[in-house]
Amino acid sequence: MRWNKISDAVIRRLPLYLRVLDELSVETDQELISSHDLGEKAGVGSALVRKDLAWFGEFGKQGVGYEVGFLRNELRKILNLDQEIPVALVGVGSLGIALTRYHLKRFEEDKSFNLKQVALFDIDPKKIGTIAEGIPVFSISEAATKVKELNINMVMIAVPAEGAQEVANVFINAGIKGILNFAPIKLKVPDEIHVGDADFALELQRLAYYI
Amino acid sequence: MRWNKISDAVIRRLPLYLRVLDELSVETDQELISSHDLGEKAGVGSALVRKDLAWFGEFGKQGVGYEVGFLRNELRKILNLDQEIPVALVGVGSLGIALTRYHLKRFEEDKSFNLKQVALFDIDPKKIGTIAEGIPVFSISEAATKVKELNINMVMIAVPAEGAQEVANVFINAGIKGILNFAPIKLKVPDEIHVGDADFALELQRLAYYI
Repeated sequence: MRWNKISDAVIRRLPLYLRVLDELSVETDQELISSHDLGEKAGVGSALVRKDLAWFGEFGKQGVGYEVGFLRNELRKILNLDQEIPVALVGVGSLGIALTRYHLKRFEEDKSFNLKQVALFDIDPKKIGTIAEGIPVFSISEAATKVKELNINMVMIAVPAEGAQEVANVFINAGIKGILNFAPIKLKVPDEIHVGDADFALELQRLAYYI
Repeated sequence: MRWNKISDAVIRRLPLYLRVLDELSVETDQELISSHDLGEKAGVGSALVRKDLAWFGEFGKQGVGYEVGFLRNELRKILNLDQEIPVALVGVGSLGIALTRYHLKRFEEDKSFNLKQVALFDIDPKKIGTIAEGIPVFSISEAATKVKELNINMVMIAVPAEGAQEVANVFINAGIKGILNFAPIKLKVPDEIHVGDADFALELQRLAYYI
């Protein structure tokens, strides 16, 4: 990849821009957007928008702005979202099921989401072999086989804190590259594995500072 | 407050430090921790740990480190988590219920969490007036009264994207100060309102970049 060294802070903002462009495409037939308007809708300053996008090419024209459809396609390509990405979720509890429903809804409604949940994993023999929300539940002991078979690159971990590290290890050994962690612990992973933190308890504690 | 100008990036890391200290207090009787060890467990460099904490006072001793119990209490005070903070959740769907369960479990198990979910809100007449997970469900039209009565400062929004901005407006008018938003839209709020983004779709899209 030619943009190996781009900071994660930049990458974090790309999905925000993509969401704005998606909304524009669905709700209006607006063809151009200025960095000012794109920034305002994404909650980012216009200079930073221009700087972020400049990492990946010359997408805009001075005084004209960005072409909505073109930039949207480019962002999808950059984020690998121009193809379906198979993902799995581990932990078929109430949180896991709710996340699955939410995930499937996003996949259905949002063409730029493109992360398709294809498998569930659990350790409970009563759940293994069943279908939940239309998705098969496998045993965690089948991780290696299923990750290969279904071409899974990413897992969401929605198991209790005590089990999360072990689950992460199993799936890293099975070959996944990214983890979205809902469990309230900090996972230890090799450098080449990317972890997203979806632990909203931390976010609530941050907000508590401001009240 | 004397630490008005501290950047949000610093505030974001405080709950990570607090979590490490909480785990140490529960699992060990370790009384001191170096900035190196605290940083390693929190996933932050040791120099940054020292810099972050220095904003709030002289908590550590050179060559000795931080007192675990003392620093833990100080962080709780800084984050306002030395008192119970009443929060509400809007949207009693499957995501809302799963988040409520998860929230109550955190509140139960984690003494530094201290955000107590005291109310649910919905617009569905079939849900209003019922009790879900032990918590009363009120109508969104009662927001102003209930926010005052229950001293609610923060709401979690778990309604569909289409309704999220309106819900945010209602609760901001009712007097809340912080929002944790699970809906996949960027909320427009006045400057004095703090919003946390708990939209995991964005986080998955970011991870897709790396695979």
